[in-house]
Amino acid sequence: MNNLESIAKLIRYYSLVMSTEAGSGHPTSSLSAADLMTGLLFGGTFKYDLDDPRQPNNDRLIFSKGHASPLFYSIWAAAGKVTEKELLSFRKFGSPLEGHPTPAFRYTEAATGSLGQGLSIGVGMALNAKYLDKLPYHTYVLLGDSEMAEGSQWEAMELAAYYKLDNLIGIMDVNRLGQRGETMYGHDLTVYKDRVSAFGWEPIVIDGHHLPQILTAYKQALEARDRPVMIIARTIKGKGVSFIEDKNGWHGKTLNKEELARALEELGPIDKTITGQIAKPEQRQPMVRAEQMARPLSYTGDKPVATRHAYGSALVRISPGFPNMVVLDAEVSNSTFSELFKKVHPERFFEMFIAEQNMVGTALGLSLRGKVPFVSTFAAFLTRAFDQIRMCQYSRANIKFCGSHAGVSIGEDGSSQMGLEDLAIFRTLLDSVVLYPSDAVSTEKLVEAMAEHKGLAYLRTTRKDTPVLYRNDEVFRIGGSKTLKSSRKDAATIVAAGITVHEALKAYEELKASGILVRVVDLYSVKPVDESTLRQAASETGALITVEDHFAEGGIGDAVKNSIAEHPVPVHSLAVRKMPKSGKPEELMEYEEISKKAIIKKVKEIAGR
Amino acid sequence: MNNLESIAKLIRYYSLVMSTEAGSGHPTSSLSAADLMTGLLFGGTFKYDLDDPRQPNNDRLIFSKGHASPLFYSIWAAAGKVTEKELLSFRKFGSPLEGHPTPAFRYTEAATGSLGQGLSIGVGMALNAKYLDKLPYHTYVLLGDSEMAEGSQWEAMELAAYYKLDNLIGIMDVNRLGQRGETMYGHDLTVYKDRVSAFGWEPIVIDGHHLPQILTAYKQALEARDRPVMIIARTIKGKGVSFIEDKNGWHGKTLNKEELARALEELGPIDKTITGQIAKPEQRQPMVRAEQMARPLSYTGDKPVATRHAYGSALVRISPGFPNMVVLDAEVSNSTFSELFKKVHPERFFEMFIAEQNMVGTALGLSLRGKVPFVSTFAAFLTRAFDQIRMCQYSRANIKFCGSHAGVSIGEDGSSQMGLEDLAIFRTLLDSVVLYPSDAVSTEKLVEAMAEHKGLAYLRTTRKDTPVLYRNDEVFRIGGSKTLKSSRKDAATIVAAGITVHEALKAYEELKASGILVRVVDLYSVKPVDESTLRQAASETGALITVEDHFAEGGIGDAVKNSIAEHPVPVHSLAVRKMPKSGKPEELMEYEEISKKAIIKKVKEIAGR
Repeated sequence: MNNLESIAKLIRYYSLVMSTEAGSGHPTSSLSAADLMTGLLFGGTFKYDLDDPRQPNNDRLIFSKGHASPLFYSIWAAAGKVTEKELLSFRKFGSPLEGHPTPAFRYTEAATGSLGQGLSIGVGMALNAKYLDKLPYHTYVLLGDSEMAEGSQWEAMELAAYYKLDNLIGIMDVNRLGQRGETMYGHDLTVYKDRVSAFGWEPIVIDGHHLPQILTAYKQALEARDRPVMIIARTIKGKGVSFIEDKNGWHGKTLNKEELARALEELGPIDKTITGQIAKPEQRQPMVRAEQMARPLSYTGDKPVATRHAYGSALVRISPGFPNMVVLDAEVSNSTFSELFKKVHPERFFEMFIAEQNMVGTALGLSLRGKVPFVSTFAAFLTRAFDQIRMCQYSRANIKFCGSHAGVSIGEDGSSQMGLEDLAIFRTLLDSVVLYPSDAVSTEKLVEAMAEHKGLAYLRTTRKDTPVLYRNDEVFRIGGSKTLKSSRKDAATIVAAGITVHEALKAYEELKASGILVRVVDLYSVKPVDESTLRQAASETGALITVEDHFAEGGIGDAVKNSIAEHPVPVHSLAVRKMPKSGKPEELMEYEEISKKAIIKKVKEIAGR
Repeated sequence: MNNLESIAKLIRYYSLVMSTEAGSGHPTSSLSAADLMTGLLFGGTFKYDLDDPRQPNNDRLIFSKGHASPLFYSIWAAAGKVTEKELLSFRKFGSPLEGHPTPAFRYTEAATGSLGQGLSIGVGMALNAKYLDKLPYHTYVLLGDSEMAEGSQWEAMELAAYYKLDNLIGIMDVNRLGQRGETMYGHDLTVYKDRVSAFGWEPIVIDGHHLPQILTAYKQALEARDRPVMIIARTIKGKGVSFIEDKNGWHGKTLNKEELARALEELGPIDKTITGQIAKPEQRQPMVRAEQMARPLSYTGDKPVATRHAYGSALVRISPGFPNMVVLDAEVSNSTFSELFKKVHPERFFEMFIAEQNMVGTALGLSLRGKVPFVSTFAAFLTRAFDQIRMCQYSRANIKFCGSHAGVSIGEDGSSQMGLEDLAIFRTLLDSVVLYPSDAVSTEKLVEAMAEHKGLAYLRTTRKDTPVLYRNDEVFRIGGSKTLKSSRKDAATIVAAGITVHEALKAYEELKASGILVRVVDLYSVKPVDESTLRQAASETGALITVEDHFAEGGIGDAVKNSIAEHPVPVHSLAVRKMPKSGKPEELMEYEEISKKAIIKKVKEIAGR
């Protein structure tokens, strides 16, 4: 049996010492939750193999309030897995103990620090345990009270209740104080209790510094059935050091050396010889599904097919080969066509309703438990989750995004529904893959390539039907392109992707009829981009024309200019530059000057005709 | 007294006829709320001057469920302000009656269509009425039940309760069905009632097709004191046309001609001669504050000043000249330094807590009521609100954003807190302004320029102190740049902005000492960009080197390549390309190769030295 008081004291000691050494960090936010975490890890509830953090049966612990990183690192030190010397490297260049937890530290489940995201990640891990791996592990999420203002928390709350995640336990550290003053509700715990109840969770209200209450709460949480549990703990920011307790102005502030000395004196003797014991989990095997080969394609090419439809077909087609695939959609599966997968594999499809932030956070949680989530909604609405998408890269996640209804070519629905900045979003991510197929065959092949690729990948699909351009055995690879038209006399190269490939081909025919030859490149891989083909086209044809159904910044035009920046030729970019509106797809593409007509005009300008 | 039954029937008739004519749109989502809107506009509650939609005393009506646009246009037709012929132009190219409401239609308060945003906009309008204009108008927001899954709704709920917005009335059209099936709760209205109560609102549960109940609810809503009201109405999707009522599969689907004929037969005789009457509001004057000149600057240049601090100082300094300025911050005002404004003008500062989506939606509402909101948080966390930011452009809003803590140069806090994609976000917006000052003087001047500019503008600030480079009387303009170093023998041009300007200047000195001259441009206006200066530098120096504390895509490198794309020279881009981490600012800039050292290396490479 662990001596919890001594461990809590040791954790407080570590949190204070390491943050003072770093000269920055959040000791007071750590102290408020020190007893909660001591009780969780060392009170007998938590099951974890300290020598194998990736063990599928381990309970999971996510610090949604990632700024309490001194506490996070200290608990593993108290468990004997981090030395005091290592703690003193906190926030230093090259240390795995970063300012906010990242996977550089081996006990980090998910990178956090953008508030309000941890609960969604926990939803993903809990969904995995209950519905996919079918393992008895529990997922614990430490939450700050300030971050409960984030709407994403309530998205996670509603979804967790909907899926009856009785293996998910939130621990709300209500320390009353935010960064610049009091939270909206201070220490009024009834507000949180009422909201938590109304959102279908079981609330347990406790004094977060009273270890017996804490232990009882965890015990009670494990008994929950069919609904998640939120432990709502009244705590004191800076608890344990009288002169910083419950005081405004101490957020994100460390003690200086003199203050630290006073604080340590208050804490009293610290027993550094103790090591908190954590029981290992039962050894069970996750559900495993057999792998099979995907069927070959069989598009006949005689009728047009929307790439969004091909996306859905591809999910179904490749699913035998990717038993870890799961599909999430934000209540538009009949538009993105992820519903095709749902019909075949309902057990691996999760309806996320209209809550895109939680959808992405949940996907991250699933990804970190070894699943390969395919996440779809309208491209426009992925903007809603950009903060969550951005954070996925810091967790080194493996997630596939699909944004449908790209560009003005969606037509009548109008500007609010048009994805016009999605390429820009996904291009910013480190080492991301951004794909934009023009027909059903390339879509199918690129969905497969995404599934095989480890990392963050985005596929952009088009609403309307487009002709099938490619043979069923054509090969498409990440970083590739297709040169569809080429001659030795090309006056310029048209670089298009998705819907504009079809405009480029129409322009080619008309230009050819009037005696002008152009090269046409289908740039289906927007990132990484096929530099060698573009450079060759640049040097052979002397000018590039990019055409895209996306705003002028951050998309294909920028990608192409980047690729030839050090060996440039003139690049002319056609893109969406006027306020988009409702109308027929053809009218809008013409209005925005990204249609066949605009391409022909630009080529003639360049060719001096 | 209006004949509400006849008006409701007329509105149903219009909604059906216009959507069938368009061949797309959402008639069933319109029919569910037809009685609610009839009761609101024509039941005696709503006060509005139909001849002057911009009248400050008008009640405001926002369709958060923007897809119910047939209903929206039909109510103004029933009020005699849109002809049936105009309704038949719905969704056609050039018609003001777009697929989702936009300002092209004169009665649209705010563009909607991305769900879950209308309530935040309403919060902004209600805040304006209660705390700024001090006018008695009410703000009504029509909400769908599906969109209540969006976390942003609950952000708006909590904020509205916090600010005691008893002039804000939500109308929740609980028609049970989403796009692809039932919502999470179907017709279980108690779930909504409990949540609404728990979030501090007064819930009123009614049958949304029973006109007497509807009228009573609105009357009751006007009597609310110190808290907002949510009318939770049980409705039937497709109400009034038996064969589409409460049926799945009819979302976003129009009746064909034969079905329309059957539907109209069911509706029975329509009286097209009636015109719904709406009472005008009282004429009161909004609060007006006198304008005064801003004080001149007085930086002495002898000590470094963080641009984020200069942002706060600038808000205070220019405030006398901009009486409509309001400042919003997401619980980090002591980091963004918007707190300096709060101290001087607490009545024009709104704490938005950690809920960035609602902050931007609220700013949009304020903007549409004539205020000039300055919205600040960490640049990284503006990604959270990209969907709301994107929608601002479709409302033609006038909002100023400030993102602090840009780039890896924030140091120890690590990747989650680093704004590395903010330039990409704001560059995508149509006609946006993106500013990135390097010192206190340019920050002050650019904040002033933003305030004077009408439209969406973004200012990026740096965490750490930086030297003051400019004299207090230096002029900075949107679209400008400063050439800081220049000679006839420049081997290349270094294009920097913000923190990297200081690295470029250091590189200049070292290079000069080793006999290499370079041009240095401070590109403080990233969009619009100073094309003529860049082109001249390109042609005179033969090569450009961009250096930015931002990911490699979508930022300064892309902006510069764009600006010279048609007359190119080689451009070499230094940007954040490795996984960022914790460390000292200098260490991180060196690691990412955006420091003085990397610049020198690149210049020497180009100069062949």
